[in-house]
Amino acid sequence: MQAFSFQNPTRIEFGVDKEKQMGQYMSELGAKKALIVYGSERVKKSGLFDDVVKGLKEQGIEFVECGGVKSNPILSKVREGIELARKFGADSVLSIGGGSCLDSAKAIAAGTVYEGDVWDFFTGKAKVQQALNVFDVITLAATGSEMNDGGVVTNDATQQKYSLSGFSLFPKVSVINPKLQSTVSRDYLVYSASDIIAHSIEAYFTAKVHPELISMQVEANIKTVIRTTEALLNNPEDLDARGEFAWAATMALNGLTHVGIAKYGFPNHMIEHAMSAVCDVPHGAGLSVVMPAWMTWYKDQNPQQFTRFAREVFGLQTAEEGIQALKQWFDKIGTPTRLSQLKIEGAVLEEVIDNAAGNAVAWRMDKVYTREAIADIFALAK
Amino acid sequence: MQAFSFQNPTRIEFGVDKEKQMGQYMSELGAKKALIVYGSERVKKSGLFDDVVKGLKEQGIEFVECGGVKSNPILSKVREGIELARKFGADSVLSIGGGSCLDSAKAIAAGTVYEGDVWDFFTGKAKVQQALNVFDVITLAATGSEMNDGGVVTNDATQQKYSLSGFSLFPKVSVINPKLQSTVSRDYLVYSASDIIAHSIEAYFTAKVHPELISMQVEANIKTVIRTTEALLNNPEDLDARGEFAWAATMALNGLTHVGIAKYGFPNHMIEHAMSAVCDVPHGAGLSVVMPAWMTWYKDQNPQQFTRFAREVFGLQTAEEGIQALKQWFDKIGTPTRLSQLKIEGAVLEEVIDNAAGNAVAWRMDKVYTREAIADIFALAK
Repeated sequence: MQAFSFQNPTRIEFGVDKEKQMGQYMSELGAKKALIVYGSERVKKSGLFDDVVKGLKEQGIEFVECGGVKSNPILSKVREGIELARKFGADSVLSIGGGSCLDSAKAIAAGTVYEGDVWDFFTGKAKVQQALNVFDVITLAATGSEMNDGGVVTNDATQQKYSLSGFSLFPKVSVINPKLQSTVSRDYLVYSASDIIAHSIEAYFTAKVHPELISMQVEANIKTVIRTTEALLNNPEDLDARGEFAWAATMALNGLTHVGIAKYGFPNHMIEHAMSAVCDVPHGAGLSVVMPAWMTWYKDQNPQQFTRFAREVFGLQTAEEGIQALKQWFDKIGTPTRLSQLKIEGAVLEEVIDNAAGNAVAWRMDKVYTREAIADIFALAK
Repeated sequence: MQAFSFQNPTRIEFGVDKEKQMGQYMSELGAKKALIVYGSERVKKSGLFDDVVKGLKEQGIEFVECGGVKSNPILSKVREGIELARKFGADSVLSIGGGSCLDSAKAIAAGTVYEGDVWDFFTGKAKVQQALNVFDVITLAATGSEMNDGGVVTNDATQQKYSLSGFSLFPKVSVINPKLQSTVSRDYLVYSASDIIAHSIEAYFTAKVHPELISMQVEANIKTVIRTTEALLNNPEDLDARGEFAWAATMALNGLTHVGIAKYGFPNHMIEHAMSAVCDVPHGAGLSVVMPAWMTWYKDQNPQQFTRFAREVFGLQTAEEGIQALKQWFDKIGTPTRLSQLKIEGAVLEEVIDNAAGNAVAWRMDKVYTREAIADIFALAK
């Protein structure tokens, strides 16, 4: 185990109907005026918005709305939210939606109390020192944002998909209601499975020190995603599977599966962010294309851990068998594994490669991720 | 997954020499006057006390000492600490020692700011509403107290070994330095292994709903304890093993391996607390006697999970094989598995059974734990 610091103050309220108590949770922390961030009008049609808002009204919490956040959320919407929050004098930001919504809410929470430009937090020009209190009802299990201090937003002017983070961005209270997640489409279920697996494997493969206890926890998470995704494809109403799937998403990126390990990177995310920034493909769909290719490209850097992955996750012998098993599983559940399925080819692919090479610099990745290396990885995904 | 609430605000500082920064961590949270709780003079002879105190002095934190906390900590020492803390006007309690020390520190932290008798928190007459800030340098990995809100103390007047808890008792900062734990005796290493395994199995076997993801996390913990204990018996200086062992102890009881499960009990602890309250045996030594006996007595209540335990932890087929493998492993590492090894026999055993039957009522255990049932369990440990 290497030295580490760990603290995660987020309160999780997990269970059916917990969103109805959000007003109470917020009130306990002094909320009086909230900006509510959401995506499509579906949260209103489904009654979810009203259920949450009823609890806020009972506690005397006033609110204004910032709807229309899209998947792969964009900076211009964040700026709009900041303006709204300032005018209203919001003390809290409440996200009702998936990870895109929550990530936007975090950026708004930090940007509202910052005098400069919110994009400074993404470029590293400024650090998040304070923020409005963040709360969320998470309707899609994937990003893990409900129990961490990070967020990802695309600058729609420059097509840079970057992240921000800061201790004050840990949500104060996150509601995870598996039942609310039952309406997620089949496509987004499998993209989410891909995303959670990606969060699980990045450090697992790239950290040169990775204690066996942590490896076992990561493998437990991956095996849970595989088992519950299959259960949910058979029966989307299986609330036990839905709950475990959701909790695996949270555990994959709440810091606990990253303690005591050596320095690590997010190469799959670095590459995929370019795909969704340039082509607006679903994040998880991009990741399931990148992962098997990157694993093949990278496996000789850490042969023991790749062999371990094959054995522990799939009961197979060799690194290559493990990679192929993952790819076949992605094919089986119906998330893409080839660039052609996402129509990323020719000039568009070149643009994606350029963008990824830019990410490699901006993210201060290992210098091995040159434009040429990224092209080599993509060549394995054709 | 069943509904749950989870929040654990403790900051963990893990790594060699982190205890030297305790003064800084405390200062960041406004500490000015600390009561330092410790056990034997060994912490002074080893230089640890001075290393920590140097950091406090650098930050201008004044302190008074409350030494002499013993294993199976007692209420009279807690009362002494409360009096000292009040006279001194302490704002913080810093424990330098193992779980006994930290549990005493938690009771002192709660008792100092409570007008009534601190024992009220243990009997359920009062709830912990506030407390002095608790900090700790944990020198023995076992109780998990460094990342939870509970503590156990024995009332030396009545021989009741009870617990208290409350959100304000989560340590603000816990230092886990594996190197400091290298000096733990061989005996206390194996007793600690037993204690961590006990923390792991109580809910694992007694919760009627136990999601597979959580079961896998518990099994990862148990397998880690087995692997690292053997490594440490071979080489006490193996800091990687020491670190994983310590982190398994923390993970066993920080709440995360208890989310989403049904109601559960602590029958092994309920029974063992009587043994250490009456006979002052080491907690882990008592537990390794109780566990195989209790498992044999209980296994038909939850056959699937016992079979799973045998398969996942030991690669065996049947529940009984799994129980015997655990018992044999306890024998192998040298922690007791029979009452005679602890000299608990005859009239003393009867007294222990009476005491345990009292615990069963006080802890509001399942009504199945009658005096007769407890005697039956002990009969399996002869």
